[in-house]
This record gives sequence, structure tokens and C-alpha cells, in this order.
Amino acid sequence: MSRFFSDKYKDLEPYTPGEQPREQKYIKLNTNENPYPPLPEVAEAVRKASDKLYLYSDTECVELRKTLAERLNVSPDELLMTNGSDEILNFAFMAFCDKHTPAYFADITYGFYPVFADINQVPYEEIPLKEDLTIDISDYFQKAGTIFIANPNAPTAIALRRSEIEEILKQNLYNVVVVDEAYVDFGAESCVPLIKEYDNLLVTQTFSKSRSMAGARLGMGIGNPELIRDLNAIKYSINPYNVNSLTSAAGVASLKLDEYNMKNCEIIMETRSRSERALRELGFEMTTSQTNFLFARHPDISGEDLYLELKKKGILIRHFSKERIKDYNRITVGTPEQMEKLTAAIKQILEEKA
Amino acid sequence: MSRFFSDKYKDLEPYTPGEQPREQKYIKLNTNENPYPPLPEVAEAVRKASDKLYLYSDTECVELRKTLAERLNVSPDELLMTNGSDEILNFAFMAFCDKHTPAYFADITYGFYPVFADINQVPYEEIPLKEDLTIDISDYFQKAGTIFIANPNAPTAIALRRSEIEEILKQNLYNVVVVDEAYVDFGAESCVPLIKEYDNLLVTQTFSKSRSMAGARLGMGIGNPELIRDLNAIKYSINPYNVNSLTSAAGVASLKLDEYNMKNCEIIMETRSRSERALRELGFEMTTSQTNFLFARHPDISGEDLYLELKKKGILIRHFSKERIKDYNRITVGTPEQMEKLTAAIKQILEEKA
Repeated sequence: MSRFFSDKYKDLEPYTPGEQPREQKYIKLNTNENPYPPLPEVAEAVRKASDKLYLYSDTECVELRKTLAERLNVSPDELLMTNGSDEILNFAFMAFCDKHTPAYFADITYGFYPVFADINQVPYEEIPLKEDLTIDISDYFQKAGTIFIANPNAPTAIALRRSEIEEILKQNLYNVVVVDEAYVDFGAESCVPLIKEYDNLLVTQTFSKSRSMAGARLGMGIGNPELIRDLNAIKYSINPYNVNSLTSAAGVASLKLDEYNMKNCEIIMETRSRSERALRELGFEMTTSQTNFLFARHPDISGEDLYLELKKKGILIRHFSKERIKDYNRITVGTPEQMEKLTAAIKQILEEKA
Repeated sequence: MSRFFSDKYKDLEPYTPGEQPREQKYIKLNTNENPYPPLPEVAEAVRKASDKLYLYSDTECVELRKTLAERLNVSPDELLMTNGSDEILNFAFMAFCDKHTPAYFADITYGFYPVFADINQVPYEEIPLKEDLTIDISDYFQKAGTIFIANPNAPTAIALRRSEIEEILKQNLYNVVVVDEAYVDFGAESCVPLIKEYDNLLVTQTFSKSRSMAGARLGMGIGNPELIRDLNAIKYSINPYNVNSLTSAAGVASLKLDEYNMKNCEIIMETRSRSERALRELGFEMTTSQTNFLFARHPDISGEDLYLELKKKGILIRHFSKERIKDYNRITVGTPEQMEKLTAAIKQILEEKA
């Protein structure tokens, strides 16, 4: 820290992204990336867009919003495109929280929420998940601030029903509820259809997982046009030219062939089922996943040991040191081949231990 | 504004980007874009990068920083790559300003500085330019806060010498001086060589102008490793995966063929000289530009009228309504052909008026 750094951030603890090894030698099951690359049409759209790179990007993302609006059955003025869903989440902390309007989120959830709260100097309260790592929706009733719910939740992989979120919305008509649907396309119910009815609902989604575009940084906010207008006021006060032209072009091309992406999600869900069965046979306990990852623990080996042993064997999974979940690991669902290698490696580790 | 928007932003006035007409019918001399497209090698690099789009981008931008460090003759740990230079500027307002550490900048300068100050709730003081629109460096001595100097300045197009900036640095050893060099490659002296000597200097640059990549959003901060560490703490608390993989790949490819970009800057500087002469012959007064734009006024027509008349003729230039500069227009230096059309159109407008 330099002598010039503002005191207000002296206790800031930045987010720690999952390991990104620069060597290709690892099977990466640690950052919830989609194992299937985008279609060649995406590459071609991006190549074409680079001819016009000397011009500024479209601040309004007109074509992208139009294409996405049709896909989601909403209106373009109910959409804001952002530089990853991290950007829309940060905007929500800025626009809808302040020192009088705290943030509420689960104690075990996306690790960026407390960081967003801190960087924006927003007070927050962590609401403990139940013993089984599920959410008790009544804990979220009548809050005096802004609620952030990752649905499905990460790293627990567990989803609430849309009707349960609707109950939370009804119980918070005077404050905003942000539903972070980063993983929704892997089997959970989206709350997008509720935005017309609830002006206190902001849904956030991303192209990183279900649309194989983690490297492109494309996210979105979906909500009532008034909420979107507030968020646009923030955008135009920070970085109006987001989203860049290349990512925008990739997004449009990806949406035009969205059956490919949705088919990949189905393949991942099938692989997930097979991997769940295989891991249960090896003695693992796990939550019911509606995401592209598993959240699993084994009675005979600690979460950290399993993570370290697998790393030695060339497989990366994600371990969290947080007390309540330190026995678990978060394992991204990769290709069937990758998951078979994972199961074989785990079997070997358990046998060596026995 | 929705009923949920935080009170702290109730007076926020977002930045207004220059018009970006969706039709192709205009000659665009209003947003200081480079008229020459990037090389085909950039398109090819971007196409190739899109095959790996399913993976997250490199949070450390290792290859890009390495390539740029060689080009600028600095060390990679003296560099932070950002999502346009708007992002690094915002980070600097966050890291080095707060309610006890105000921001200082000129009254006529990049219009985003007061917006960044407001969104971060940082008090600021605007220091008036002299009557001739130049900076009196002694106005910037011994300030009790963070100084932002666009050098060359926009929209005035006027640059300070490096030795003058160094004087300001020496007079502010206990506070940060940010030198925004968005336009430096069009004939001004860069302060990058000073970063090794002054730990209070942060230089910001962009690929938008001299490297024809406005649509890609690529900027950078150059400074002492400790300043860069502070700015990284902000980055990792907001959007760690910036810069996206496509833009990173474009940046590396562009730097590898940087002679092409620098040659384009020379062509633009030559076109600028010719356009200056042509406009002076038509009776314009203008500042001495060291940028890719001209800042000009004519005794017989108001800035707004000239802007409107040119728009009718299919040419966009930028007019600012701010009192001190409302007689001026900012005119981007385009291709020789575009500038000839501009001169012809202006000649016609002045003749019709006479």
C-alpha cells in the first residue's frame, strides 16, 4: 500500500479469483467455466467487428439489447448490458445501497458481495444459511435494505423455486431484491418473468457460464425500466462505452445460435448426474446441484487434502477455507472425459489413504 | 429515477458522450476517433482468441503487460491494464481521493473528471485556465489533494512540456499527480520517463486514439509499483477479469506492429497542419494543437451555429455549451479527404452567411 492510498480502504480485502494456471497441464474444474468453446460464428463475428475497432463502441448496445430482449421475452428498456455480471452487481451496490440502506446476503454465497459492500462503504448483514446449507426464505422478509440472492446459490449449488423468490419480493415491496442468476441455465427457474410485476426486482445474468464466454466479460441486468434508468446513470458516470464492440458482437452472434448453448447446458446437466452418481458411490455427500458444479464432501478426507491431492494429480478443484464449508469442495462439471479422470483420480486417492 | 435510487446520487450528472449516429451518412469528426482501422493482424489475433473465450481472461494481463513494458521501457509491475483509460482514471479518484483529499483539475478539461469526483463523492476544485486557455503551472503548486492534468489538454488541444509537469511534481511530493496522456502520441512529450523518479506520478494512456482501438476499451496506468498495487486492490475489488481476452489479444497484436500506429499518428499530424492552414485562411483562430483534433473559433459565426450548419451538411463536430468555450468547436482530424470536405463545407457556410 502506498502512502497515498485513501484511509477509507485500509481494511479492504479484495476478491480472490480461482487459480488460473498459465500452463495447460491442469484439468481445470475450479472456476466453473463451460468446457465447450463458443461456435465458429462467434469468432467470425468478432473478427468482423475488429475492422471497426477505431470507432467507439455503441454506448446503448442497441443490437445486443434488441437480440437479447427477443430471447428473454422482455423489452430492450428492461435491459442493461454490462462488463460481466460483476459490473451490474457493483452498480446495484452503488445505486441501491448506502450507509442508511444496508445490504443483506447469505453467509455462504458469492464471495464478491462483501467486497462490493466494502468498496462502496455499504454496511451489510450476512444471513446464515440453515444447517443443510439451504435458505430459509422467512429470514429475508421485511428487510430494511437491499437483498442479494444468488439463485442458484454458489458455492452450495442449491436453488430456490421462483415462487419462493416471489414470496421474498412480496415481503420487500419497499426495497430492492437482486437475484443473481449466473447459474440459472443449468436447471433452475429464472425470475425474469417476474420483472413486469415487481418493480423492486433486479435480475442479473451472465454469458460466462451457459454461453461459454467467460473471457469476453458480458453480463446483464434485467428489471423495471426505472431501475434500469438508475443503473444507467451509474454506468454513464463510470464507463459509458461498456460493453466493448468485440464482446457485443460476440454476444449477438452467440444469441442468434442460442440452441447450441442451451444444448451444451443439457449435456453438462447429464454429465453432472453421472458424476453425482459416481461420487456418491465413492462415499461423497453433496447438495442437489442446479448449477454447472458440485459441492461435495467426503467423510474420510478433508476438503483441503482432497484439493491438494487432486492438484498433485493435475486436476484443479476449488477449496474454500471458510469454517462452515471447509470440508467441502466446489467441483466444476467438465466434459464426460474430464469427469471420468476426476473420479478415477479420487478413487485412487481414497484407496491410497485407506 | 426510481424510488429506490440512493439519495447520495440525487444530484449526479452523468457524462455525455459525443453523438454516435447509427446511420453511416455522417463524416464523424466529433469524438476524436482515429480514421485509420487497425491492421488485419489485430482482427486475426482477436479471431484466434475467441476460440478460448470459454475460459476466464487473465486477471494479470501477463502477455499484454510484458509487451507494453518493452514498448514503453518500463517494468511490467509499473503497469496496470484497464477497461479503457476511463477505468484507470476512476480507480485513481477512488484510491487517491476522499472527503479529506480533494481533486484538483482545470475548469476546461476532460468533462469526465467532475463526474468521477461526484460518483465517488470526492470534493473538487476547478482551477481556471488562463485567458489564452493555457495552464499556469504555479496554480498547481502545493495542493492538498490529488491533481488531474490532461496533457495535452482536451478540448483545448494544448500541451505542457515535460519539464513543466516535472515542476508540478516537485511541488507536490506529498500528493499524487495524475497525468492523463490520452492524446500524447500526436506530438506532445510523455511523462512516462518520470515515473522512476517520482513516486507521486501516475500516467494514464489509452489505445483509443493513437492505436485505433476506441471500440476495444483498452487503457493503462503507468507508475511506481506501489501506486500500481493500490490501483490493483481497487481492480480486484470491482472487476478482476478486466481486461477481457479479446481486447487483450488485440492490444498485444497492435503493439507488435506499433510502427503502423505511430505512422498513422504522423499522417494525422500532417493532415492537422494542412487543416490548420486551410482553416486559418478562412478566418479561424485556433490553439496550437498537439492532439488529433483542432479547437477553433470564427469571429463571424457562433460555435453552436457552425456545429448545426455542418451537421445539416452531413459533418459532425463537437460543440460544448460551457460558457468560456461556447464560441469554439472541437474538430477531430480525420483523413485528408474528410478534412477537405470539411473545409469546403465551412467555406460554403461562411459564404452563405456573408
